[in-house]
Amino acid sequence: MQICEFQEMMRRIYFHRDSNRGIEGTFDWLADEVRELKEALKTDDKKALEDEFADVIAWLASLANVANVDLEKAALNKYENKCPKCGHSPCRCPFFK
Amino acid sequence: MQICEFQEMMRRIYFHRDSNRGIEGTFDWLADEVRELKEALKTDDKKALEDEFADVIAWLASLANVANVDLEKAALNKYENKCPKCGHSPCRCPFFK
Repeated sequence: MQICEFQEMMRRIYFHRDSNRGIEGTFDWLADEVRELKEALKTDDKKALEDEFADVIAWLASLANVANVDLEKAALNKYENKCPKCGHSPCRCPFFK
Repeated sequence: MQICEFQEMMRRIYFHRDSNRGIEGTFDWLADEVRELKEALKTDDKKALEDEFADVIAWLASLANVANVDLEKAALNKYENKCPKCGHSPCRCPFFK
């Protein structure tokens, strides 16, 4: 599924909630999911880990909907086939550990 | 671009760095980008905001590469066309503010 289609799917399912909650409240949900992902990364539960990755990208798409940002366009503007810092693929940035 | 194609693009550009840095270090970069997104949401700089959304999805894809998770598959397993909690689209969860 394209990134833009996923963002549109999140809009259909959640925008009535997301837009009422607003940017700050929706960011807080994203931040919570990132913390849950951190915990899941410490376990051996692959299904739980996949669910947390799903939640982070879902809330990121919800937040992009509220902030009126096209996530796919933003991602490809910055990262189309090369590192935006050094301009190479694979990245050759000397400082980028 | 499909979510899986974006994750593969991140692999081509960054996996040599991501795999050496490991899960914990790559998560820390993601967490930093989420904090930068929070700051960008407070400004009126649309280009900076789009760049921060790009960085968060890029580092999420990098982290998924290190954790050996297919981000698109994980996202669609949990969120295909309905809320995973109530099973409806739009979501009807009474508790989900």
